[in-house]
Amino acid sequence: MTEENQHENEDLQSKLERIMYLLRKYKLVEGLVRLQDHPPRQDLVESVIQKQNLASLQNMLDKLHPADIAHILEALPLEDRLFLWNLVKAENDGEVLLEVSDAVRETLIATMGSSELVAAAEQLDADEIADLAPDLPIEVIEDVFRSLPLGEREQLRAAMSYPEDSVGALMDFDVITIREDVRLEVVLRYLRRLGELPDHTDQLFVVDRNEHLKGVLLLNRLLVTDPDVMVSEAMTKENVKFQPYDKAQQATEAFERYDLVSASVIDVDGKLLGRVTVNSVIDFIREKAENEALSQAGLSEEEDLFAPIWKSVKNRWAWLAINLVTAFIASRVIGLFEDSIEKLVALAALMPIVAGVGGNSGNQTITMIVRAIALGQVNTDSTLKLIGKEIGVSLVNGLVWGSIVGLFTYVIYQNIPLGLVMALAMVLNLLLAALVGVLIPLTRKKMGRDPAIGSSVLITAVTDSGGFFIFLGLATLFLL
Amino acid sequence: MTEENQHENEDLQSKLERIMYLLRKYKLVEGLVRLQDHPPRQDLVESVIQKQNLASLQNMLDKLHPADIAHILEALPLEDRLFLWNLVKAENDGEVLLEVSDAVRETLIATMGSSELVAAAEQLDADEIADLAPDLPIEVIEDVFRSLPLGEREQLRAAMSYPEDSVGALMDFDVITIREDVRLEVVLRYLRRLGELPDHTDQLFVVDRNEHLKGVLLLNRLLVTDPDVMVSEAMTKENVKFQPYDKAQQATEAFERYDLVSASVIDVDGKLLGRVTVNSVIDFIREKAENEALSQAGLSEEEDLFAPIWKSVKNRWAWLAINLVTAFIASRVIGLFEDSIEKLVALAALMPIVAGVGGNSGNQTITMIVRAIALGQVNTDSTLKLIGKEIGVSLVNGLVWGSIVGLFTYVIYQNIPLGLVMALAMVLNLLLAALVGVLIPLTRKKMGRDPAIGSSVLITAVTDSGGFFIFLGLATLFLL
Repeated sequence: MTEENQHENEDLQSKLERIMYLLRKYKLVEGLVRLQDHPPRQDLVESVIQKQNLASLQNMLDKLHPADIAHILEALPLEDRLFLWNLVKAENDGEVLLEVSDAVRETLIATMGSSELVAAAEQLDADEIADLAPDLPIEVIEDVFRSLPLGEREQLRAAMSYPEDSVGALMDFDVITIREDVRLEVVLRYLRRLGELPDHTDQLFVVDRNEHLKGVLLLNRLLVTDPDVMVSEAMTKENVKFQPYDKAQQATEAFERYDLVSASVIDVDGKLLGRVTVNSVIDFIREKAENEALSQAGLSEEEDLFAPIWKSVKNRWAWLAINLVTAFIASRVIGLFEDSIEKLVALAALMPIVAGVGGNSGNQTITMIVRAIALGQVNTDSTLKLIGKEIGVSLVNGLVWGSIVGLFTYVIYQNIPLGLVMALAMVLNLLLAALVGVLIPLTRKKMGRDPAIGSSVLITAVTDSGGFFIFLGLATLFLL
Repeated sequence: MTEENQHENEDLQSKLERIMYLLRKYKLVEGLVRLQDHPPRQDLVESVIQKQNLASLQNMLDKLHPADIAHILEALPLEDRLFLWNLVKAENDGEVLLEVSDAVRETLIATMGSSELVAAAEQLDADEIADLAPDLPIEVIEDVFRSLPLGEREQLRAAMSYPEDSVGALMDFDVITIREDVRLEVVLRYLRRLGELPDHTDQLFVVDRNEHLKGVLLLNRLLVTDPDVMVSEAMTKENVKFQPYDKAQQATEAFERYDLVSASVIDVDGKLLGRVTVNSVIDFIREKAENEALSQAGLSEEEDLFAPIWKSVKNRWAWLAINLVTAFIASRVIGLFEDSIEKLVALAALMPIVAGVGGNSGNQTITMIVRAIALGQVNTDSTLKLIGKEIGVSLVNGLVWGSIVGLFTYVIYQNIPLGLVMALAMVLNLLLAALVGVLIPLTRKKMGRDPAIGSSVLITAVTDSGGFFIFLGLATLFLL
């Protein structure tokens, strides 16, 4: 960031801190006023100070980009957040609501009246209203719907009908369409008459009178081509096209692979419905990565950092419950061998090593396979090869780490057979981890499920119970 | 995807399968030829068939986008990959090398001669060559360097000097610059003379005679504005600017937040150096997300799916070693209480439950905090609030799950004091997990480290050893 505009567009953190400083100042004065039983004169002075404080907050907020306001609201505890939210200009409400996370959006919407919400929604495009819709009260949606012109009503209806992970959900309707039988000169004049182009317009869509997509005219092409040329000659036929029910994931891959800025969305008959732009693709990628990180830790959804405790408990309980069940099972496996442990108590101290290292190694395998599946690199041909490779890796790892663990055991307990059993158990549990680590994600994929979600719980369950069983079983067989 | 272009740009999976089919066919015939001790005539027939097979493979490859070729190479085992790589047109070599992952790139480069590598690199822009450079032999870089025109040499030198996570590493040099004292008419004629604009050109950069950036002219603006207007009137002053040593992460956040397609990069004096475009930002986001997923499972780098076993072992050993150390420590903690376990063997079966659930709960806390730090939502003000909240959540969780676990214990062992100890240990270990789960990432952040990496190992180490210690300690105090 350069000096001059650091203030303006980058150091969000320092903006956040300034806002928090102003907020604290305001609240401090307010607190003093409440504490004192002061004469009216002083009241006046203080209210002047407070007005100044408020004005500087307001002033600062007004200059911020809605995305920055959203970011700041996210970082504030509930009370401060709502205080600030009331200061945000009504004309920015819609944009800010779009930018905040679902969890925070809920807290903001809860404080707004119907008419405020309708006003906020009306500032937005149909596809943006559709994004907000799940969080809005039904009567607000109906009001907004009635206030829209007919064309946009249709768009809103369509946008709300697409599933969350579909191209339709990423689509917007800001397309500029032209005909193929005119000269570029005409197109240039047409654009000038429009006075403004939608964001991320890198191409114009060439349609026939039935709105069937014939091709696209890249702006870069339009700019460098002789204005006397016909659109039909300058346009590109081969372009990436999606249908609204295609998977959004498919679209993001195409954007990444072919470095797109926008792409058309058409219906089954080839009629142009809208477009997908790179900014919604980035948002989708980001959101997906976040959801994966959250779900890997068993957090079922976005959790507002300052959410009330009961909400957080709710968000986290499912995973803990599953974990408890698998822990109970592992515990019962150990229970089977209580006699053996009673005879050789060292087993109790050693068994978590076998289970733990197995779980880790299995998670490494799963991460590799899940990634390969996501990149489309796994097919029937390669499955056996992959299993072979993972088995090989864990055999090497088992022999290396098994020896170290065996040695450690011998050093601590001066018991050679115990060391050997420990080493063997490590090898076997790592092999189990490799096999199951390949099979779990592949099976989940075959069943049409997301191979990433829950794989880690499953593998840990297997390597825990399996590890305890293998180690205690071997010990019972050979040592007692 | 529409019918007509499904074949052309989307179903990468089916392209991959067709290529693998052709490959198998080719290899099958080759195998037959080798097996038979055939007369020359038959040899001829077979070589004709083989030529056809090769030609159809070649033909298919020639029609593919370099990104698609890269994807297919990634999905193939080494032998097939190298066979196909030889069929890729030399003029595509550079692009494909850019697109493949580091691990696969290594395998491809290993088979190429110096002159081939130089030829491949010469097809690329300076910033792209810089991306490849770390994988190229030094003499190849020197050859490429000598073959470049002076201006590009400077660019390459600059591009190679920026750290990997800097804006400079994302930067390219494809900027079109104009002067502010001309009419748009002149700009339009200039663009037509250029004949082609670089990809992702959504704005022209307005510079003075010393190449200091004065502003940008958005193409969308250029298209809708009267050609008689001066550049100085049509250009935008406030634009997002970066410096090459800014963190790349900062740039990606700005792109996400302000929905940019390109942004300028300037030096300390305000001289235009280049630009960052949205496609390199997307690549960076994707790569970062992948690296995080890998490092969370303790995989130190990208691992080629079909890498030789010893390479995979090397990639994975560090994490397993750390894990082993923490497991040893936990084992020694248990070892402290061997007397207690000998007296009450149920302790051995119950202790993994306390440790396991604690680890899970701690990981949930860490995930929340790491995410909040990444989003810049954590500051000194909120730290205490966060600790308070997480402690609250785990207290509730501890009481709920502790009761269930206590009940389970009572049902299995018919021992009320044991059930109570179990419940109490759960509560305490969850509290420990919450406290440490907040403190670990915050401390790592204060130390200037990435709060995500390794946090999960650390918390599991604490909740394992801590859980065993708390549970066995309480049991020793109250039950024996």
